[in-house]
Amino acid sequence: MSNPAPLRLGIAGLGTVGVGVIRIVRKHAKLIEERTGRPVAITAVSARNRAKDRGVDLKPYDWEDDPVSLATRDDVDVYVELMGGSDGPAKASVEAAIAAGKHVVTANKALLAHHGQAIAEAAEEAGVVLRFEAAVAGGIPVIKALTEGLAGNEITRVMGVMNGTCNYILTRMYDAELPYDVVFDEADKLGFLEADPQLDVGGIDAGHKLSLLSSIAFGTQVDFDGVELEGIERIQIADIEQAADMGYRIKLLGVAQMTGRGLEQRMSPCLVPAASPLGQLEGGTNMVVIEGDSVGQIVMRGAGAGEGPTASAVMGDVMDIARGITISTFGKAATALVETRPAKATVPAAYYLRMSLMDKPGALAKVAQVLGDAGVSINRMRQYGHDEGTAPVIIVTHTCTRAAVDEALAGLGTTGVVEGDPVAIRIEEV
Amino acid sequence: MSNPAPLRLGIAGLGTVGVGVIRIVRKHAKLIEERTGRPVAITAVSARNRAKDRGVDLKPYDWEDDPVSLATRDDVDVYVELMGGSDGPAKASVEAAIAAGKHVVTANKALLAHHGQAIAEAAEEAGVVLRFEAAVAGGIPVIKALTEGLAGNEITRVMGVMNGTCNYILTRMYDAELPYDVVFDEADKLGFLEADPQLDVGGIDAGHKLSLLSSIAFGTQVDFDGVELEGIERIQIADIEQAADMGYRIKLLGVAQMTGRGLEQRMSPCLVPAASPLGQLEGGTNMVVIEGDSVGQIVMRGAGAGEGPTASAVMGDVMDIARGITISTFGKAATALVETRPAKATVPAAYYLRMSLMDKPGALAKVAQVLGDAGVSINRMRQYGHDEGTAPVIIVTHTCTRAAVDEALAGLGTTGVVEGDPVAIRIEEV
Repeated sequence: MSNPAPLRLGIAGLGTVGVGVIRIVRKHAKLIEERTGRPVAITAVSARNRAKDRGVDLKPYDWEDDPVSLATRDDVDVYVELMGGSDGPAKASVEAAIAAGKHVVTANKALLAHHGQAIAEAAEEAGVVLRFEAAVAGGIPVIKALTEGLAGNEITRVMGVMNGTCNYILTRMYDAELPYDVVFDEADKLGFLEADPQLDVGGIDAGHKLSLLSSIAFGTQVDFDGVELEGIERIQIADIEQAADMGYRIKLLGVAQMTGRGLEQRMSPCLVPAASPLGQLEGGTNMVVIEGDSVGQIVMRGAGAGEGPTASAVMGDVMDIARGITISTFGKAATALVETRPAKATVPAAYYLRMSLMDKPGALAKVAQVLGDAGVSINRMRQYGHDEGTAPVIIVTHTCTRAAVDEALAGLGTTGVVEGDPVAIRIEEV
Repeated sequence: MSNPAPLRLGIAGLGTVGVGVIRIVRKHAKLIEERTGRPVAITAVSARNRAKDRGVDLKPYDWEDDPVSLATRDDVDVYVELMGGSDGPAKASVEAAIAAGKHVVTANKALLAHHGQAIAEAAEEAGVVLRFEAAVAGGIPVIKALTEGLAGNEITRVMGVMNGTCNYILTRMYDAELPYDVVFDEADKLGFLEADPQLDVGGIDAGHKLSLLSSIAFGTQVDFDGVELEGIERIQIADIEQAADMGYRIKLLGVAQMTGRGLEQRMSPCLVPAASPLGQLEGGTNMVVIEGDSVGQIVMRGAGAGEGPTASAVMGDVMDIARGITISTFGKAATALVETRPAKATVPAAYYLRMSLMDKPGALAKVAQVLGDAGVSINRMRQYGHDEGTAPVIIVTHTCTRAAVDEALAGLGTTGVVEGDPVAIRIEEV
């Protein structure tokens, strides 16, 4: 092979990930060329603040203030979008890049969760590649596994702990026996939280990721609005301890599966067996579990964020393009992706219920009656501790539908013996 | 796109994996075409016994008694070799397929461990694709992760528990408190063992797999002869229990890393922390751990064998070819793979030593002296139980080289206070 032309990158966004990509391209120039058969070079970069010292020398690269200008340069083959944001410059520049016939590699889960279908169709129409390994679960090559390695499977379920901040908070609450608020503040001080913390603790960020996995797994159009979102704010340390006592851990778990009624996507706190890989996941690490009809269960674990891991994912996509690998964004032609209706928690499960029961005669009997009327049968029940005038009670149900649980929760409010809102947490069989 | 031509497979070997591939191709014809953009069809098959009932209808396919004839048919685009064996018909037919310009997908670890370099060079020369996802860790898409998803990393270490039979035996010894011989016989009766059990319990099968991972990870020519092999036959239930008591599990663990002295590849029983993903792996499940300079540690876990998982891996490769993905067998041009010398356990570690110490005055002092002379310092020591005239003693060393341990073991034989051969098991930091 005689001196193949380099693949030329334009990188927009020079936060930790952008800087990480620059570092890899420099440090591993030889390795990259050996593996892909051609050099990978950076032509130009763009970011908000040109003056900022990022610890890497940017002089070798042209500077563009406007990412759209960067994305459409004649000397850019691949536009690497690392700015983030579901709209604004990220969306405009990605669209401009595609229109200009550039391949796109992005780490932007929000952009694709909201506009993935339109952007993938545009890329397909333009005959360019749009890849996003870095958008889901950081360094774990899960998009590749799902799209390519496991392509021979009908996927039956995808699960994931994909927000390291939430997993850090829940793990820390358990380890240090600290309440949610205290650990939340800790995480904030450590810089673990997004500017809008709801992106993390409200499950939005992880929900974005789940919606992208769902699309590939089930051949459906990305449907972030169809993700039932529930954050971790209502999890108390008592829940974590009671769950642990029964052999469970609480995780902010994403679950997607196709049901007879449509695509079910949930991102919510769940109890998972302490001895399972998901239950054993601690701190900021991510895990994705893929279940296929032939392969059974595949578990992938790794760093979900950070300069190195996320840049590694970006480079995986870039090197695929350098190798000439052209694959549909969501694993099949964008125009063939099916529009499905969202199914709201139709898959039955056992539930963990916590409520504050008043010291009144027959209180427990009333609770049992309401649950029974809703079709929720009790597997085990325990009272722990005692507050003034009320006692916290934990009930683990037998398998039932979420609708039955919701009916029971509504009914509990009318008994006059339950103080405040009861909490229901799904127990996911993993 | 107007009716693209089907990708036509010729499948040699109709054991569980071959049958599994046929089942997937039939069951998921639509899904496969949607994902790859073209149909995948089976033209012809070959196996030793035509009359055998395999539970699938073979009438739609031409039959070839000779796999070489199958591999070179004009109406075959991809030769799928699922017969196994490092030489004989597997090798002859793969070579014939390549010479005839066919792509090759194989699950044959022995063939590639012994002849991978020559076969990869031939494939490259012929401009065809040779892929082997199914040869390593069953359904886990680890070859793809290492070759493509993590391609931007310098790989620093690869580890794996990749022989389900050994892991079953070790797990079962621990759970049921049964000695090795009894569990070995159980595994044999359950059909878990290869015709030559040394392939399993001697670490050969897992060693084949490790040598293939090493080649991709380090860009080196496959060097199975460079794998230091040690089987699990000498592991006693006491070792497993003592290890557990100290917070470890014993696994047949493969470890490959590049050192200043060459490529170190070991497949041997190791102590790993009980709380680590490797330590928590039970039964027949496989796990591969990949460590890269940017990505950190990626852990992949799944079924290491069986019809569905292995066929899933074969189909991943087939569908890559249907999608037009052409990638070098070992991740870079075969002619660019480096010939490295094997390094024998140069990476230091702590070791677990078990010996049978005679009831003689000063026995322990002599042992300590020998270890000290060899440069092996003792971290902790314990005596457990007592046999007639001897006492089993466990010593955990501080980090030292394998050479120092070997010197100590040789020295122990000359003390006159150690009965039989001491056992040394590496404690791998994972």
